Amino acid sequence: MTLMKSWVASANAPDHPFPLNNLPYGVFSIGDGDPRCGVAIGDMILDCREAEEEGVIDMGTGPLFDVPFWNEVMEEGPELWARLRARLTEILAEGSPERAAVEPLLTPATDAVMHLPFLVAEFTDFYAGKHHAVNVGTMFRGAENALPPNWLHMPIGYNGRASSVVVSGTPVRRPWGQLKSPDHDTPAFLPCRRFDLELEMGAIVGSGSDGPVTVDEADEMIFGYVLLNDWSARDIQAWEYQPLGPFQAKATATTISPWIVTAAALDPFRTTCPAREVELLPHLRDTVPMLYDIDLWVSLAPLDKPASIITRTNYNEMYYSAAQQLAHHSTSGCPMNPGDLLGSGTVSGPEKGNRGSLLELSWGGKEPITLETGDQRSFIEDGDTLILHGAARGDGYTIGFGDCTGQVIPALENPYER
Amino acid sequence: MTLMKSWVASANAPDHPFPLNNLPYGVFSIGDGDPRCGVAIGDMILDCREAEEEGVIDMGTGPLFDVPFWNEVMEEGPELWARLRARLTEILAEGSPERAAVEPLLTPATDAVMHLPFLVAEFTDFYAGKHHAVNVGTMFRGAENALPPNWLHMPIGYNGRASSVVVSGTPVRRPWGQLKSPDHDTPAFLPCRRFDLELEMGAIVGSGSDGPVTVDEADEMIFGYVLLNDWSARDIQAWEYQPLGPFQAKATATTISPWIVTAAALDPFRTTCPAREVELLPHLRDTVPMLYDIDLWVSLAPLDKPASIITRTNYNEMYYSAAQQLAHHSTSGCPMNPGDLLGSGTVSGPEKGNRGSLLELSWGGKEPITLETGDQRSFIEDGDTLILHGAARGDGYTIGFGDCTGQVIPALENPYER
Repeated sequence: MTLMKSWVASANAPDHPFPLNNLPYGVFSIGDGDPRCGVAIGDMILDCREAEEEGVIDMGTGPLFDVPFWNEVMEEGPELWARLRARLTEILAEGSPERAAVEPLLTPATDAVMHLPFLVAEFTDFYAGKHHAVNVGTMFRGAENALPPNWLHMPIGYNGRASSVVVSGTPVRRPWGQLKSPDHDTPAFLPCRRFDLELEMGAIVGSGSDGPVTVDEADEMIFGYVLLNDWSARDIQAWEYQPLGPFQAKATATTISPWIVTAAALDPFRTTCPAREVELLPHLRDTVPMLYDIDLWVSLAPLDKPASIITRTNYNEMYYSAAQQLAHHSTSGCPMNPGDLLGSGTVSGPEKGNRGSLLELSWGGKEPITLETGDQRSFIEDGDTLILHGAARGDGYTIGFGDCTGQVIPALENPYER
Repeated sequence: MTLMKSWVASANAPDHPFPLNNLPYGVFSIGDGDPRCGVAIGDMILDCREAEEEGVIDMGTGPLFDVPFWNEVMEEGPELWARLRARLTEILAEGSPERAAVEPLLTPATDAVMHLPFLVAEFTDFYAGKHHAVNVGTMFRGAENALPPNWLHMPIGYNGRASSVVVSGTPVRRPWGQLKSPDHDTPAFLPCRRFDLELEMGAIVGSGSDGPVTVDEADEMIFGYVLLNDWSARDIQAWEYQPLGPFQAKATATTISPWIVTAAALDPFRTTCPAREVELLPHLRDTVPMLYDIDLWVSLAPLDKPASIITRTNYNEMYYSAAQQLAHHSTSGCPMNPGDLLGSGTVSGPEKGNRGSLLELSWGGKEPITLETGDQRSFIEDGDTLILHGAARGDGYTIGFGDCTGQVIPALENPYER
């Protein structure tokens, strides 16, 4: 696909993240104004609430934009999603006769504060990148037990904590937790010493289900994608995760990028999963390409210093697609709801420079990485800002996500003193 | 404490589950009517929506009962909880001058259909009974690894799936899932063969938090308790749970009893946790008694046959209280919200007849139990109805929960055919 031109001139630059081909969905506010739904187009945001009030958007449903989240659009289902996208494309396309009516509904993005784009119903995090699973498994359980026996047969996941999902830009406070170092007999309650990022994609369930769904059905249920940083306290995790999985190590915060990039916008970038090492059971088998070719990279900026890129990878490295994860999630009859968020699992590539966490990049802290500033890092230090970036690159255009940013601030001195 | 007498005569029987001392909170409907909040008193239910509309309940807040769930009451906090309970006690007590105004607001409980009493925000399930942990650990990992090294230092838990929580009486369909039997090289996708119950208490978080809370603060945040059956697919669990914990094995359904028994009603039954085998870290230490003396028992009725009691235990067997679980849950800064549900973990006692799951009662299926009907059970069979019961026994009165019931119906023949 090639660039679709908009009358919003900034949207037509080949490297702009928000061309007419994208039209990502967010929630923004200006000054003291109420948060409302908006669509990014170039350097501008279309105010959906105003557009609906003015009759520029009228999908023949009840009001969709009287609330500051996209869940009501999701609940309408794929047919409405397609019609809404077509209408937005129509009014923002070069030559649209409606330009004069639409132009007053645009606000410069630089004036906007972004909010969570949807109400997160429940959050599930998967472990579906093979390079990551092998790397972490080797460090936690040794090379001979790196990949659990079930891993090649189904996307392993665990339920996370929806209440801890925050939008890009929210500061993240270093947590306290129960830790036990190998050279102590008993655990201690201390601020986390091995605080880490996880570079992930988040898939947003748009349509619900109340019974098992096929991989094809699951693919149609997915509304869109965000970048997702699943902040991880590695020392808390190592002590707590056996036998019931990660719990407090993953509950401090999960940051998502502010714009939902729709599955429709990503459709031209579909790609297949890697070759299967063992055949999947029929209910989890790939049908059509359901991964996406999305470049992902992370930069780290120490306090008051410039950022260095610390890793580069691609979403096409995952062993399981979000559709396969969602299909697996539904096998038990587990009800899935609009607003459920599925983390892909850490996206690591095959080489050292492609790893999606500091745990892997520094190999458990044994091989610190050196930033362009000369600073070294094994794990995140206070004041560090982590920035996740993503881009799907088309013919003369780019589909971007907006940055997924978080600065780590120091732990509370005494967590019980308020 | 002794029986507090009500002018609702049925409430004064010493073994009635809903005396004036109890006043549990539910959501009910009559015929085609809308669900609304209600309070059980003897054989009757007080209609809170009508009581508010008539001015019989007016707590000086905005409307509390214009919605069919108790979350709005929870959000008001402990001061309101106490005032509401005092007001309900006043109008329902023997000799109340308001009897004539209140009596028309009562409906016979036999006419009511019960609904989920609150919107479940998120669901966390713990593993805080030592007998259960040792029993299951022995079966899953061998006697030498039965209790994980962290178990005596913190309440181990995992996030469950709020969308799968259902009210007592909802049929539970046997799930499909990925299983691997030890004598096969590869897994298969089949209906669960080892479907089980877990006898638990559920604690309902009433007040939220956005940082670590002490055990005392956590105790005050708990609104009330329900009986909770965490249906478990043991064969799915055994294959999936390493390394990230139970996932689809626990996602089919979790049934709760229909009435929230308030922490206030249970206050006279507070009891201490068992002696600590190793000292807890200060932030998790017991301060005052925070467990409760509640008799718990389970009956199983095969299809069209009478029920047999299969186990008897007591909530005082738990190693960790709900307050300790909630305090631990918050250590990372994890935001806790009104409507969060915390499963205690399976409540097993020390003897074989006190075990809270069929997995333990039949020792992994090796020692089937015999019901009074002569039927044998290793795990649940299609058509079986499981009923959890609970009662705290005071001086001449009983605090009951209402039954927590679910009938297991056969798996779908083909889960993808609709």
